[in-house]
Amino acid sequence: MARLILHIWMSLDGFIAGPKDDADNPLGINGLRLHKGFSPQDWPTTGPDGTVFDEVLATGAVVTGRRTAELAGFWDGDHHDGVPVFVPAHERPAEDPPGQVRYVTDGIESCIAQAKAAAGARDVLLHGAYTARECLRAGVLDLLDIHLVPVLLGGGRLLFENLGTEHVELDLVRTLEGTDALHLRYQVRRP
Amino acid sequence: MARLILHIWMSLDGFIAGPKDDADNPLGINGLRLHKGFSPQDWPTTGPDGTVFDEVLATGAVVTGRRTAELAGFWDGDHHDGVPVFVPAHERPAEDPPGQVRYVTDGIESCIAQAKAAAGARDVLLHGAYTARECLRAGVLDLLDIHLVPVLLGGGRLLFENLGTEHVELDLVRTLEGTDALHLRYQVRRP
Repeated sequence: MARLILHIWMSLDGFIAGPKDDADNPLGINGLRLHKGFSPQDWPTTGPDGTVFDEVLATGAVVTGRRTAELAGFWDGDHHDGVPVFVPAHERPAEDPPGQVRYVTDGIESCIAQAKAAAGARDVLLHGAYTARECLRAGVLDLLDIHLVPVLLGGGRLLFENLGTEHVELDLVRTLEGTDALHLRYQVRRP
Repeated sequence: MARLILHIWMSLDGFIAGPKDDADNPLGINGLRLHKGFSPQDWPTTGPDGTVFDEVLATGAVVTGRRTAELAGFWDGDHHDGVPVFVPAHERPAEDPPGQVRYVTDGIESCIAQAKAAAGARDVLLHGAYTARECLRAGVLDLLDIHLVPVLLGGGRLLFENLGTEHVELDLVRTLEGTDALHLRYQVRRP
């Protein structure tokens, strides 16, 4: 059974991008710091970081927020290995996205269900803070892989905000000490 | 040489207290969740949690924010083992604090220097988010012991905010997996 896994790089003070992130500067001012050691070009393929790399690439489908997808140029239609990429959207944009990317307009639950069906026995990779929060609220996020970066950014885009004040209980199910980040896997407890 | 160590319990989304924390409810609405397993009465004395417990009690002086001290009733004048407790304050309050607690009004650097001198070879324990941020800005915080609690609180009092956008680089120097929290020790890099 596929699981929905968020993979995200976060500073100890909770930021996933620096201030003023936009199309010209997707990670914001000095936000590249967060991905130090993990750019697609220099990502380590051995050790704990390599394990994370392998797991990301072993996923059988991708769900991504529209903003993240647009900033990434829709990965030119192929995120990895030609797996399908699902982008939840309130309305279908005029232009179709390229390659394996498709919009899903009938809600987040349906989007995740379609992605899981497409992934088969493999996991589904989740990208994007906004969509992650939507999935948390809808109770469809299975795992949070937080790659905790040893820096205080001081400002920028937070991963967790406006979640509401219902506690979401987590279980820490794995800790891997990488070179440039501590890889923490949390399982979301179902109420 | 004494080191200044912040010990603080923080949810994965960065909160150290729930919403609406005040004198009647120091940890805010449902904020007691953060200290689950670590109340003074039930704190484990063995294993990784016990190590943290021992280290806190081995400190030779305490620096604490005034708000934290007041909420804790100044620990009736004795935080632990009669070590001196320093409370940075802008102005000296009319009433003297009890027991081993004293106000320091000549700035955070002086306060930390006095506490380190008093601690001798032992470390100095730091309490309080506001004072921790002051120490970070002043460059006098040596270690952050973040006890990361596997829960998303969704709201409340943040540990890190208004730090400014200068990055503060950290080194993860120890990871201990406790029963109810992941104990992360970060060393603050000097610029």
